[in-house]
Amino acid sequence: MSMRETLRSSFVQLSAIQTRWSDNDVYGHVNNVTYYSYFDTAVNGWLIDHGGLDVRGAIVGYVVETSCSYFSPTAFPDRLHVGVRVARIGRSSVRYELAVYRNDDDLPVAAGHFVHVYVDRETGRSAPIPGATRVALEALVSGSDAAVGPATTDRPAPDTREARA
Amino acid sequence: MSMRETLRSSFVQLSAIQTRWSDNDVYGHVNNVTYYSYFDTAVNGWLIDHGGLDVRGAIVGYVVETSCSYFSPTAFPDRLHVGVRVARIGRSSVRYELAVYRNDDDLPVAAGHFVHVYVDRETGRSAPIPGATRVALEALVSGSDAAVGPATTDRPAPDTREARA
Amino acid sequence: MSMRETLRSSFVQLSAIQTRWSDNDVYGHVNNVTYYSYFDTAVNGWLIDHGGLDVRGAIVGYVVETSCSYFSPTAFPDRLHVGVRVARIGRSSVRYELAVYRNDDDLPVAAGHFVHVYVDRETGRSAPIPGATRVALEALVSGSDAAVGPATTDRPAPDTREARA
Amino acid sequence: MSMRETLRSSFVQLSAIQTRWSDNDVYGHVNNVTYYSYFDTAVNGWLIDHGGLDVRGAIVGYVVETSCSYFSPTAFPDRLHVGVRVARIGRSSVRYELAVYRNDDDLPVAAGHFVHVYVDRETGRSAPIPGATRVALEALVSGSDAAVGPATTDRPAPDTREARA
Repeated sequence: MSMRETLRSSFVQLSAIQTRWSDNDVYGHVNNVTYYSYFDTAVNGWLIDHGGLDVRGAIVGYVVETSCSYFSPTAFPDRLHVGVRVARIGRSSVRYELAVYRNDDDLPVAAGHFVHVYVDRETGRSAPIPGATRVALEALVSGSDAAVGPATTDRPAPDTREARA
Repeated sequence: MSMRETLRSSFVQLSAIQTRWSDNDVYGHVNNVTYYSYFDTAVNGWLIDHGGLDVRGAIVGYVVETSCSYFSPTAFPDRLHVGVRVARIGRSSVRYELAVYRNDDDLPVAAGHFVHVYVDRETGRSAPIPGATRVALEALVSGSDAAVGPATTDRPAPDTREARA
Repeated sequence: MSMRETLRSSFVQLSAIQTRWSDNDVYGHVNNVTYYSYFDTAVNGWLIDHGGLDVRGAIVGYVVETSCSYFSPTAFPDRLHVGVRVARIGRSSVRYELAVYRNDDDLPVAAGHFVHVYVDRETGRSAPIPGATRVALEALVSGSDAAVGPATTDRPAPDTREARA
Repeated sequence: MSMRETLRSSFVQLSAIQTRWSDNDVYGHVNNVTYYSYFDTAVNGWLIDHGGLDVRGAIVGYVVETSCSYFSPTAFPDRLHVGVRVARIGRSSVRYELAVYRNDDDLPVAAGHFVHVYVDRETGRSAPIPGATRVALEALVSGSDAAVGPATTDRPAPDTREARA
C-alpha cells in the first residue's frame, strides 16, 4: 500500500477498537502482536455483523497469511480505528488490507494485510466462499470493480488440508 | 524462504515453546495471532539469555515489520519449537527469519519474519545496535558471512521517531 | 456481594468494554481469564482518565488479590459494561468490587473484586496511596461515608516487598 | 490455604509453565491476569494428558469461580511450576487448589483456586462428572480420603443453565 492508500479517508469501513491495559508491553506501548488481534476483531466482527460468518458452519475462513508494518506507537487508553477493505476476492480466498488509526489521526500507526482461505472443516480442502459471505465481502471491495478478480486469478489455493484459523 | 530453507534442520537455534489452553481459538486450533507471540518470546528470550537485551537500556529494539504464513494447524497441548535465525544485520536493524515446528515434525506449521530497529528511547531516533546485542546476534546469522551486510546496505531506517515495541 | 448489590443500577460507574475475537475460547464463550483483563482495563482506565494513575510514578498500585464468579456466558461480539466501585480505601490499599453486564442486561454475567496495594517501586514497601489517586478513588466509593475506613482498619499490608502488578 | 499448605512439597502434581514475553506488563512483571491463564493451562493440560477432557464431548467443565492471591513478582523469562491438587470432588463439580512457584523456590509467588462445574452443553444444565474425568481427578485429590466428599455435600450447583468456559 502506498502512503496515500493508507490515509484514513481511503477507507470506507472503519471499525472502532478499544485498547486494553494488557495491550501495553514493558515498553509502555501496544505490543506488535496485539495489532493482529485488532485485525482479527475488525474483520470477523464486520463479517458477523453483516451475515458473513457462521463460526459453526461447515465452511469457515482460515487465515493463511498475515503481515503488519508499524509506523508509530500507540498505547492504552488511546482510542483506535481499524480501516478494513477487501483488495481481492477469489473463488475460495479473500485478501484484506487493514490500517490502524490512533484517536483522530489521518495517518496510520500501522498497516497490514491478511488472507482468509475458505475451507471445508470436515475434509480440510479449500471450498468456494459461501454465498452470504461473498455478498458481505463485496461491500468492502475497494474502489473499482476490477478489484474483484475472476476465479481464474485466484491466489493458488495453498495446501489447505491443514490451513488454520 | 524456500521450502528447503524452512526445514527444521536448516535452523541451528530451536527454542522450545509450550502451548497454552488460551492459544486455541473457537476453531480448536492455535489462533493466527498467537504465532507472533511465539516469535516475540523466541527472539527476546534468546537475546536475554545471551546478554543481548536490557529492557531498561537507553537503546532498545522496536518491531517495525512482521509477517507469517500458516501451513497447517496445531493445537494445545502440542509441543512446539521455533527456529530462529538472523537473515541480515545492518547498522541499526536486524531481520529475523522464524519457523514453527509441531512436536517432532520436520516441516513447519508456520514461517515468518520480523524486523527490529534499534531506537534511542529518549529521542525516538534510530541508533546503532548496541555492541553486546551485535555480538549475540552474530551467533544467529544463517550460513555464510555474506549474511552480514555492510552498513550501507542497511534497510533504510524507517521514520522511527515513533516506531514501537 | 448480594444479588441486589450486583444489579446494574447499583453501580454509578459503568465502563464500556468491547469484546474481541480472541476473547472466545474453544467453547465459543469469553474465557474465564479474560474477565480479569476487563477488570484491569476498567479500573486502570478509570484511574488514568481521572488523574489517578501515573505508570511511571514512584508509587504504583500492585494487585495482591483478585476473584471472580461467573454466572452466565457471553461471547464476542457482545457489548459489555463493567461496573466499578470502591468498597474500601485504607492507608495503602483499595478494594474494588466489579460486575460485568452483557448488552442491556440488568443482571451481571460475572462479578468479582480486586485489591491494589500501593508500593514504592524502589524499595518494594507499601506506601500511602498518592493524594491524586485518593481523590480519584473517593468518587468511586459506594454508598455511605462508612465505606471509607480509618487507616487503622486497613487490610494488613502483605509482605509487599515483592507484590506485583 | 495456610502457608504450609502452599509449600512446593505439599503438591504431588507440579506442571511446568514457560513464561512469555507478553506475560510481562508495563511494570516489567507477569501481569495478574496471566496467572489465571497458567491455572487454565495446568488443569486442562493435566486432564487432557490423563484422559479426563474431551473438548468436543457432550459434557464439559465450565469455570464458575476463580481466585488468586499474589505474594511476590515473577517475570519473563523465569521458569515456573504450577502445583495442582483437587480439594473436593462432588457430583458435578470439582474444586482445584493451585500455587505458582518461580524457578526453584519453595514458597509460591501466587496461590488460588478454581471450580469447574460439569454441564451438558446442549441443555446447559449441570451434569455428573464423566467417569473418565472422575478417575483422572481422583489421582489429584490431596491427602486424605476425606477430601472426596459425598455427593450430598456437593457445592450447590449454581444455575449453570448459563455457566461458561
